[in-house]
Parts: sequence; C-alpha cells; structure tokens
Amino acid sequence: MADLFWPGDVRAGAHFTSEAWLRAMLAVEADWLAELIAAGVAPGTAADDLADLVGVEDLDRLGVEAEGGGNPVIPLVALLREAVAERNPDAARWLHRGLTSQDVADTAMVLMARAAVESLREDLAAVITRLADLAADHRDTPMVARTLTQHAVPTTFGLRVAAWLTGVVDAYDDVIRLRLPEQLGGAAGTRAALVELGIDPTTVAEDLPWHTTRSTMTRLGDALVSCTDACGRIANDVLTLCRPEIAELAEGSPGGSSTMPDKANPMLSVLVRRAALTTPQLAATLHLAAAEQVDDRADGAWHAEWATLRDLARRALVAVSQTRDLLAGLIVRTDRMAATLAAAGHGVLAEQRSMASLAGHEPRSSYLGTAGAIVDEVVARARGIEP
Amino acid sequence: MADLFWPGDVRAGAHFTSEAWLRAMLAVEADWLAELIAAGVAPGTAADDLADLVGVEDLDRLGVEAEGGGNPVIPLVALLREAVAERNPDAARWLHRGLTSQDVADTAMVLMARAAVESLREDLAAVITRLADLAADHRDTPMVARTLTQHAVPTTFGLRVAAWLTGVVDAYDDVIRLRLPEQLGGAAGTRAALVELGIDPTTVAEDLPWHTTRSTMTRLGDALVSCTDACGRIANDVLTLCRPEIAELAEGSPGGSSTMPDKANPMLSVLVRRAALTTPQLAATLHLAAAEQVDDRADGAWHAEWATLRDLARRALVAVSQTRDLLAGLIVRTDRMAATLAAAGHGVLAEQRSMASLAGHEPRSSYLGTAGAIVDEVVARARGIEP
Amino acid sequence: MADLFWPGDVRAGAHFTSEAWLRAMLAVEADWLAELIAAGVAPGTAADDLADLVGVEDLDRLGVEAEGGGNPVIPLVALLREAVAERNPDAARWLHRGLTSQDVADTAMVLMARAAVESLREDLAAVITRLADLAADHRDTPMVARTLTQHAVPTTFGLRVAAWLTGVVDAYDDVIRLRLPEQLGGAAGTRAALVELGIDPTTVAEDLPWHTTRSTMTRLGDALVSCTDACGRIANDVLTLCRPEIAELAEGSPGGSSTMPDKANPMLSVLVRRAALTTPQLAATLHLAAAEQVDDRADGAWHAEWATLRDLARRALVAVSQTRDLLAGLIVRTDRMAATLAAAGHGVLAEQRSMASLAGHEPRSSYLGTAGAIVDEVVARARGIEP
Amino acid sequence: MADLFWPGDVRAGAHFTSEAWLRAMLAVEADWLAELIAAGVAPGTAADDLADLVGVEDLDRLGVEAEGGGNPVIPLVALLREAVAERNPDAARWLHRGLTSQDVADTAMVLMARAAVESLREDLAAVITRLADLAADHRDTPMVARTLTQHAVPTTFGLRVAAWLTGVVDAYDDVIRLRLPEQLGGAAGTRAALVELGIDPTTVAEDLPWHTTRSTMTRLGDALVSCTDACGRIANDVLTLCRPEIAELAEGSPGGSSTMPDKANPMLSVLVRRAALTTPQLAATLHLAAAEQVDDRADGAWHAEWATLRDLARRALVAVSQTRDLLAGLIVRTDRMAATLAAAGHGVLAEQRSMASLAGHEPRSSYLGTAGAIVDEVVARARGIEP
Repeated sequence: MADLFWPGDVRAGAHFTSEAWLRAMLAVEADWLAELIAAGVAPGTAADDLADLVGVEDLDRLGVEAEGGGNPVIPLVALLREAVAERNPDAARWLHRGLTSQDVADTAMVLMARAAVESLREDLAAVITRLADLAADHRDTPMVARTLTQHAVPTTFGLRVAAWLTGVVDAYDDVIRLRLPEQLGGAAGTRAALVELGIDPTTVAEDLPWHTTRSTMTRLGDALVSCTDACGRIANDVLTLCRPEIAELAEGSPGGSSTMPDKANPMLSVLVRRAALTTPQLAATLHLAAAEQVDDRADGAWHAEWATLRDLARRALVAVSQTRDLLAGLIVRTDRMAATLAAAGHGVLAEQRSMASLAGHEPRSSYLGTAGAIVDEVVARARGIEP
Repeated sequence: MADLFWPGDVRAGAHFTSEAWLRAMLAVEADWLAELIAAGVAPGTAADDLADLVGVEDLDRLGVEAEGGGNPVIPLVALLREAVAERNPDAARWLHRGLTSQDVADTAMVLMARAAVESLREDLAAVITRLADLAADHRDTPMVARTLTQHAVPTTFGLRVAAWLTGVVDAYDDVIRLRLPEQLGGAAGTRAALVELGIDPTTVAEDLPWHTTRSTMTRLGDALVSCTDACGRIANDVLTLCRPEIAELAEGSPGGSSTMPDKANPMLSVLVRRAALTTPQLAATLHLAAAEQVDDRADGAWHAEWATLRDLARRALVAVSQTRDLLAGLIVRTDRMAATLAAAGHGVLAEQRSMASLAGHEPRSSYLGTAGAIVDEVVARARGIEP
Repeated sequence: MADLFWPGDVRAGAHFTSEAWLRAMLAVEADWLAELIAAGVAPGTAADDLADLVGVEDLDRLGVEAEGGGNPVIPLVALLREAVAERNPDAARWLHRGLTSQDVADTAMVLMARAAVESLREDLAAVITRLADLAADHRDTPMVARTLTQHAVPTTFGLRVAAWLTGVVDAYDDVIRLRLPEQLGGAAGTRAALVELGIDPTTVAEDLPWHTTRSTMTRLGDALVSCTDACGRIANDVLTLCRPEIAELAEGSPGGSSTMPDKANPMLSVLVRRAALTTPQLAATLHLAAAEQVDDRADGAWHAEWATLRDLARRALVAVSQTRDLLAGLIVRTDRMAATLAAAGHGVLAEQRSMASLAGHEPRSSYLGTAGAIVDEVVARARGIEP
Repeated sequence: MADLFWPGDVRAGAHFTSEAWLRAMLAVEADWLAELIAAGVAPGTAADDLADLVGVEDLDRLGVEAEGGGNPVIPLVALLREAVAERNPDAARWLHRGLTSQDVADTAMVLMARAAVESLREDLAAVITRLADLAADHRDTPMVARTLTQHAVPTTFGLRVAAWLTGVVDAYDDVIRLRLPEQLGGAAGTRAALVELGIDPTTVAEDLPWHTTRSTMTRLGDALVSCTDACGRIANDVLTLCRPEIAELAEGSPGGSSTMPDKANPMLSVLVRRAALTTPQLAATLHLAAAEQVDDRADGAWHAEWATLRDLARRALVAVSQTRDLLAGLIVRTDRMAATLAAAGHGVLAEQRSMASLAGHEPRSSYLGTAGAIVDEVVARARGIEP
C-alpha cells in the first residue's frame, strides 16, 4: 500500500515489504524442507513446496502473533504446520527442523537484500551511463566554480558532472562489493540440531554462521547510505543551480503547487535530498545494533535491524531511481553558465593573474587547468563498468 | 496492514497511518471550507463535509501522485475537486482556497500528533500508576544494588522502581507540556491569500505561522524519545534481572522459541529495548530537519519529517504500551533478591564499615539510608499526577 | 589550547574544558568537606578549601589515572588526599566521605552546565534583541518569498527575520526552562553513607538522586541542539541569500581565501551551519545514554555522556556567539530585494490573481497579507523577554 | 593535554591532535615547496624545509585566526610566509603556490589517517592473534549458550571467541582495504593554478581530486566504527559474563571505587562499550557531510568533518587498544562455565531431545554440533592474516 509519508516510495516496488519478507521466509523454509529430504533426513513424502500455504492475507495474523516471540518466524512456522498438516503430515512434521528463527529471518533478509542490491545496481549503472554521457557532452562547457557559495574560478560543467559521477561510481563499487551470505547456525550458532539430525553442515551451507557478527548488515547499510550520499550531492547542486537567480540547470518535469499556478519546483531533487538527510542516522542504527550484540542472540539489537534496514533499502532504491529520472530530464542551460561566468569576469581570474605573475608570463586564456583531462579519465573509468 | 518488521506495531493502531493522515488532511480541508463559508467568503452552497469523497481505496493513487508535487496534499485537492464537482461545483471551486499544501499537511500532522499524544499520555499514566504501586509495595524489599555490573551496596527494589518511575514521570511531563498548534500561513507565511479573500486571519488562527520554525516538531520528537528512553531503561533492568543466574525478576508472559521448547524469553523487554535503540537517531533527524530549514519552504528538510515522525510516534506508542503490559505482569522474586543480598554479604557492607568507622560507631543494621523516604516522595509525586 | 579542528572554538572559552571540570569537581569536594564540618560529622580541624591542591598541571596525571576506575574522580580524590595529608590530616581523612564518584562528576557537570547555560542565555538574549530590531526595521521591506528554491509570492524581509526570531525565542525558552539539579545519591542512590555518617540528607540536598534517570542530561542536550537548530536555520538563509546571483544579504566581515584574493566568503554562516550539521547526532547520543541506563550505575552509558555533552555545549556556545556576530554585521541589500521582486513580477502574483478572481475583485496592491502584523507580534513577544 | 572527558584517551597518543594536524599541514606545504622547485617552477633558492617555523606554541594563534577563513590553513600560510620571509624570501614567495586550503587540509588529514590506520591495524592484528589463541585454547570448553538473555543450548567458549574474532577480522579487512589518497585539486578541482605555473599535474598527483566526493572520509569513518562495533560486542559479553551471579569471565585488572573498597569493576569493558555507543552517530555525521556537498566547496559540510573524524579516529584507537589489554588479561573461569551448563542441565537439551526423537535415535552426548570445526576454520583464517 502506498506510503503517503514518503512520496516516491512506490518506486521501491515490492522490495523489503512485509509481503516480500513473508515470501522470502517461505522460500527459506521450502528450500530447507527440500534439503532435509535430499539429505535423507526427512522422508520423500515430506516434499511440499509450501508456496500456496500462506500469503498476503495472513500478514495481519502474523503481524499480531510476531510479538509473542519477537519475530515473525515463530508464528509463520506454526501457521505453515497448521496449514500443511492435513495434506502432508510429514511436511508438517519436518519443516523448519534444524533451523532456528534467526536462520530464517536473517537468510530471508539476505534474499531481499540481494534483490534490492540488484535493482540498485541496475539503476546506479544507468545513472553512471547517463552521467558519463553528460560529462563527456559538457567536457568543455565553461561555468563558474563556486566555493563557500561564492564565485571562485572558471570550471566546466563537465568537471562538475565528473565529480557527481565519481561519487556514484564509489557507491556502485560499495554496492557490488557486498557479500550477502546466508545464515545457518541453529539455536546458538553451533549447528548442533543439524548434526543431531544427521546432516553435515558443510554440505548445506557455504558460509559460517554470523548470527552475532553483523558486518553483513552494517556493510550493507553503509553501502546503501553511500548511494544516498552520492545522489544527495547531485540533488544539492541541482537545487542550487536551478534557483531562478542562477538558472543554470532545471529539472525536466518540475512539480507544481496546490495554489501557485506558475511554480516549477525541482521536486525530484527535493525528494532525493530528503532521503539523504535521513539515511545516515539509519545506517548509524545498524552499527549500533552490531555493537550491541551480546550472548548468542541479542536482546533487542537484532530486532532493531529489520525496520531500519527496510527503510534504508527502500529509501536508497527510491533516491537512486529518482536521480536516474532527474538526470534523464536534466536541462542544462549552457548560455546561462556562460553568461554568469562572463559577468563574474575579472574577479574569478584573480588567482590566475597571481599565478601568471609568479610564473612570469601573461595569463593563459581559459584557466581551466586539466578539467578536460580529468573528465576524460573519470568518463573512461565509468564506461569501463559493466552495465 | 501489519508491519512484520516491527513486532508489536499493531499496538499503535491507526495512529500515524497513511489512512490517518489522509483522514486528517480531509478534516482540515472540510473545516477550512466551513470557515470560508462562515466568513462569508464562500457561498453557503459550497457547504460539503467532503468526508465520503476519498478513502483508503484512494491511497494508492494519492501515493503515486504525491511524488509530482512532493506531498500528498496536491493530489488530494485535485481528487477532492474532481470527486465533488458534480454534486457540488461550489465546493469544488472553493475548497482549499487560501491554504497552501504545507498548511494542510502540517495541521493534519498536528491533529495526528494530538491523538497520539493523548494515547501516549493515557498509557504513561497507567505505567505511572503501576510503578507507584510497585514502588510502594516494595518500599522495603531489600536487594543488592549493582554498579558497573558488580554488587555494590544494599538497596531496595522499591528504590529501583522509584528510579524507573522518575524517568517515566519526566517523560510524561515532557509529553503533556507539548504545544501542538495548527499551522496556517499560506504560500509563504504571510497569509496573503486569506487577506485577499477578505478573511481576517486572527479570526481563524490562534497561532502564528511556523512553517519554517520547526520547534513544534523537534519538541514533539524529543518528548517521544524521552518516552522510549524511560521505557528502555526499565527494559534493560528487567533483561538483566531476569537472567537465569540472577532471576530476581521475570516477565509474566514470556515468549517461546521456534525450536527450543523450554525457553521463556523476556520478549516485551526485548522489544522495548529495540525501540529505545532506534528512536534517538529519529529524533536527531527531526532536529536536522529543523536546522536545515531555508527560505519559506525547505527543499527536502520539511519532507524528511513525515516518515521520521510517523516512525518515532508509532514506536513510542508501541514501547509504552508494551511497558505497560510488561509491568502489569512483572514477577518480582523477593526471595531471590534477599538470597543474592545475603550471599553478597560482607562485601556489600564494606562501605558501611568504612563510614561507621569514620563516624566512630558500629555499623547500623541495613545500610539502606533514606531509600524508603525517597520512594515515599517519588510515589507521592507520581500519585499527584492526574490520570 | 586552541582546537584547530573546530575554528571558532575559542569563543566557548573555559566552558566545559578539562580544567573547568577539574575545578568544578574540586569545588564539589570542598563544599562537601565544609558540609561535613557544618553537620558536625567531621571535626572543625578538617576545614580546608582545597583550592590550591590541584591545578592544570595535574591534568595529565589525572587523565592517565582516570582510566583505572573509568572516571576522573577516583584519582582526583587520591591526589587530594595525598596533597593535603601533611598540612591537614583531618581534611585528608574526611574529604569525599559520604559521596560516590558519580555524585562528584555529575554535580560538577551540572555546575559547568549552569555556567554554560548562563553564557548561552546572554548571547541568545543579544541575538533576540538584534533580531527584534532587524525585524522591526524591515517590517515593510519587500522581498520575494522562495519555496522549494523557487520564487513564490511577495513577502517582507521583516517576516523572514521574524521566523528566525521565533526559532531563537523557542531555543531561549528551552534553555531557561532547564532545571539543573545537583546529584547526591551515594554509591547507589540510597544515601546510606550519609545516614551512616549521621547526616540528614534533606539538609544537604534539595533534589532526589537522579544517578540513573538522565532526563537532566537529555533535556540539556535537547535545549542545546535547539540553539544550533535556530542558528543553523538563520545561517542557511544567509548562505543562500548572499550567493552573488542573489546578493540580498552579505556578511559584514567575510572571510578570505588562501589563494583567491577577491573572495568574500560568508564564514560565520558556514561555521554556524557546520555546527548545526553535527549537534543532532550528539543529542541523540545523550538520549541513547539515557535509554541504556541499567542497574544503579550504567556500564558505559554514563561514561558516554561526558565528552558528548562537552562537545554539544561548546558547539552551541560557539554557534550562538557566531550568530550574534553574524547578525551584528549583517548587510541587508533592500535594493536587491526590491529588484528581485520586481523582476519576478507577474509570476509571483499568480496566486493573488487567482484569489482575487475567486473573491470577485481586482488584486489588491502588495499581496503581503498580514506580514506586518505578524512581525509586530513576534517582535513584541521577543521584547518581552528579560535580557 | 589529557582529556578528562574520555578516560583512556591518552592511548590515542599524538594521533589527530591539533599539533599533529599542524605538523601534517606543515609537511604538505614543505613537500609542495620541494615539488615546485623540482618542477623548475620555483627557484632553487626557495628550498626550505619549513619545519622549524611553526610549532605547538603557535597553536593558540592559529586556533584564533582559523575562524576568519574557516580553516587553519589560511593563517598557517600567513604565519609561514611571515616567519620565513627574512631568512628566505623566495620560500616566502613560493610556498603554497598552486594549492588551495582544502588541498592542504585534506591531504594533511589523510596523512594523519594513514598513521592512525597503521596503529589501528597493529592493535587489531594483536587482538586477532590473541583471540585466535583464546579460541583455539577453548575450542572444547563447554559453556551454556544464551539467547535473548536465557539459557539456550550448549556451546563452547571457543565458539563465542570465534564470533568475536570474526567481527574483529571483518573490521581489520575494512581498515586495510581503505584507500587514503592525497587531495590536489586547487581552488575548484581544475588544477588550473598548477597548469598556469607550468606544472603537469599528472607528475605530482597520482589520484584525481576528490574535494567534493567524500567517499574517502565516509569509508574511513565506516571502517573506524566497524572497529568499535567489533570491540563493543566483545565488551558486552565480558560485561554480562563477569556479573557476579555468572562469573564466567573477569577482567585481569579490574577498577576500583572511590568509596567501596571491595569493588572489582570491569572498567576496560565499560570504556570500550562507552565508545561503541557514541561512534555510530559520528560516522553518520561524516555521511551527512558527504551528502551535503554542494558546489566546489561545501558551505559547512566540509568543516563538519574535521572534529568528527578526529573523535572517531581517537575513540577507535582507544577502544581497540583497551580491547587488546582487556583480552590480554581476560580471566576465563572454565569451572564456572561447566557448572552453569551442568546446572542448566535438562532444559538446554530440550532441542536435542526433540531433534533426536525426530531422527529416531537417542540424543548424542554433547550437542555441540560443529562448534569445534567452526572454531578451527575461524582460527585458521585469522592466523592467515599477516601481522
């Protein structure tokens, strides 16, 4: 259902919804049942894909019952057992055996994260492609550089875009570097239930348990916030440069007002900036949850991750998608850039005069340094990224 | 719909849901239309309560369309105009006139906040009543005080509860002190549209516009987080004291495990603690949004408030409600408290011996100081709060 | 010593320095020794003002030794006992008796907070006075309102300043409302040591112990961040409006560049904005520390407060002081404001035309609504604050 | 000078002090002057190592003057020019030419970061070595696993240590993966001053400018907080397991009390936990600063990084060093572990009975699953890290 509190939220689609988590947990339980059969532990008669047993209509019940044990896996397993009992008592008997709630919740979270990361990667790649084109197109478009809000020296719009691009490439690198291993440790990470059932854990799990080592979550959170950092930085420039007094950039499809008919508001930028103001604190909560681990299952820190990661992931997805649209429609007013630079004139060449005087020659023409070469290098690197 | 990511979320009921915001915005528009008629600005024929025009079935459309203008008011007004046009063209013509989106969104947020604060106040009052009884009941129940995890000196369980109670009373005071004024400023806080329509703003608004002065939001956020602070502090003590090696407290209705049949987990405490780990960062985001105000409507900072406040309010409501249940069922094992204190024996009276020796007399018996008097005073103050 | 990492830090003077904390702790110990004598518990021969016994030269030793017991009080008491032993063995014997480290550390923190709050109050009052004058002076200075970065409708600079002023007044109210009680609870809040020594705690302490109820700290933190919120909001406007393309405001004493001789950077605004970006997260840490209380002295949450509060207090002091200077020198370019509004012309009156048309009359001249009256009311309230 | 507000701060030594930043900036300027000469731009007579020109005695002046331009480089360059003028007018004339303040401040920050990272790496490696030994030593030491504070199933202390170790290895990996490139972009990242002076930027800088792409800082911050996450998680376990009722672990050199002679407080753990409660919010500030970049030098976001990174780095250094000591002295009470497990008895084997019954056999003896094999694998990986 639409989230009125986060305009644009629909862009995140089904990622990290309650239904998505439910389906992912169901998939984990179904896979596990198949593993038990494959391992010869459960009988072949226990085979059941479970897929039709629960659905969105059960979310309310699961939501209510999740409080009792503090997580949704416990009522889900109960519901599955109840639902499958008649048609397949062996499935009812064997499902979830050897797992603990955290195995299912964590692994389902990882499955959602993998899907979200793949969507994010695609959108980031599209942003990178667009930015590389934009930087190349404006490799030699002069504009005034601004530092601490004031005109500084000449630069190019291409170099500005190259700076945006570098940030997005960094975020992309952070995202694709993520390892998102499944979690299978049993009640306390010893995998004792598996062994007791006669399963060799190394045949069913590639990775070691990480039930109380939450780097998987913090690295994911840090990568997600690096996405909104990179997008926020772009949005801030658009918001500044689309001010009517500057008017060097404009959004292609600005938003309107409920009462002022002539307004053309840079809404995508506003909403991207909004995200970037909120996500660092969410990533901090994930770190805090990692730091507050204790025992073999933390008394609250684990539970604090779920909604936090959900919000962080959806906001990153929305922000990157909005940035993609923002850039697709971005209007670049090179005439305004040129006019501002011309008007700034003498002042922004003061450094040049000072350098030229030191070097004992007349100022060279444009004072753009190696802006073009930097753009070329950034663009070449960006184009080397596999889409 | 149930939020699987935040077990217990159903306790917050309809507070701060998308539907609640929609209904609150609808109420603001309906009240305003009535004001326009009452002021003689709109014709009597424009009268319409609007209540049946939109509902939960419109949330998806509104959610999608909210992105265009960056807030849900713009599509809501469009939808209302469209829906009312046939039956009441004058209502369609006059509704929302004189307002701006932010007036509606902010005031609707305030209406939701008032309702949430009232629920919170009731639950806090119930917690206070329960804690006052608990403190009084255990005014003279000896237990060992623990500092930095180690046994320190004797104390009473009543004094411990009095400390909990003081924190909850402080949160209660913060909550009831809140002013939650409506916001009516028009496009930029000048109320020019009102004047142009012939309305005297002082007749329709008690308070000054606060569209870019967000103390209303930060104070609300700070009060909400003070609630989870106070509840978290209680939960931490329960979590510590219900450890099987200590076993001085227990939850009345502990939670189970998906695989370990004998577990009795202190789930309410776990979930309360969870909330307390996440809300300070949300309140920080509200402050950041206040600090990042600029112009006459901020380019993202305003929009960052909505989901943040929603989450903060719902989590506070859930945490206080859970704390209420936690305390209602709390099992106090005075025998264990006595046994631990007895076993700690000599060590926890070392300070007493040192003081008595200084004062030149033999140690007095219990070394409980004025614990009882402090409990009495805290309880008396708490009982002075109007329920 | 100057903190290169926080330009402007010197404005916070001696507030919340290591030396200030040391002196405050020394004062607490000296007062307490006098109390012990006054109560007839310690002999008159124990009288000693202690003031000359430790100083800034001992900070290194105390800093090193503070780690052992986790706080500076333990080595301070040891050092005092050692230093006073020869000249006054009774003082050595009696000092600190009845107190615990936390009593001294917390109360000394409160003493520093009171002093900081008083400085802050003075600077806030000066800011309020200046803003009230500025708002009154520009009650009728027209400028264009900007919403979501775009021109919206006409407003006045006076109304903008009134919005700034409202935020500062809110912060002032938060600051002066603070209660900063001393903390005297003994080892675990029971005041048992006092009683053992024969002291009636009600004669030496007005307030109840709050060793594990940290509302004193969170309310202080929230008030401090409300100061940087209010100042940050002003700085953001100055930063926007001093952009050369807008140029409606300018700092009176702008900063230079290490290499661009013509730069006039709005440095006070930059530094104020800097503070506002960092303080919400510090206030969040204080809330987290409050929520993470447990037992009768928390295992880390208490210790997390000190540096956090120090940084928050100093940054608030610096930001308010910088805002005071910023406003004292603020250059208001009413000609530019008028020119921008004139140039925006037709567009910013679109709402007016729409309202006038609805109301069936011609647009009235200025479309400033009740901006002037709002300014008058805000100014009158501000001037009602006792300086 | 010792920081009383952060006991243990001295462990961070000279890292990220004002003096260290000053010296690093001086080194950057000296290196650059040598580059100018080497490039044939400045005359050989300009050669000067600058090292003796400023020192700790200038910090106060620099601290005061840093406010004017918002950073310490501007007054430093002025001071250097003034100080070197008489003995070497050419050095005075040429130093800093081609650089901008941000080049110097950022690169100096990177130099400090490299040194801090190296110290951190060493301490992390020592922690890893110790933990690997501890895990191996206790590979088969049985203890009870605790989940949600309650006894769950049997585990080994070795497996617990392996979980700690995995977190520290993850932090180590994050730290050594850091790239900390120098920053050389000139006034706006175009390197125009260099070109104007006749220098080929590719000969003096390996990396592209990153003046407004702050991934260098956010990745550093994230890695630093991953260190405190890992240490905090260890500290929490020690704090729990050293409670007198549990007493399975103890610190080797516990801290005392100012008034209770028998206390043995786990102070290193307390102080490590303290750090872990504060650093996530600091890392969030670095992300926020990255997201709030705008133009070619941000109006506050850049300035917000310095103190934040300083505090984050020093706290990480202190926490890792304290963890090293904590682990070196850690007392493991295997008898208590065994006794607790034995006492928990039947209950913690309920899952085993259920699994065995499902599998149709009698419970196997220890129910430790593959705990030993997991320990072996974690230890082997840890020992593969180059010290």
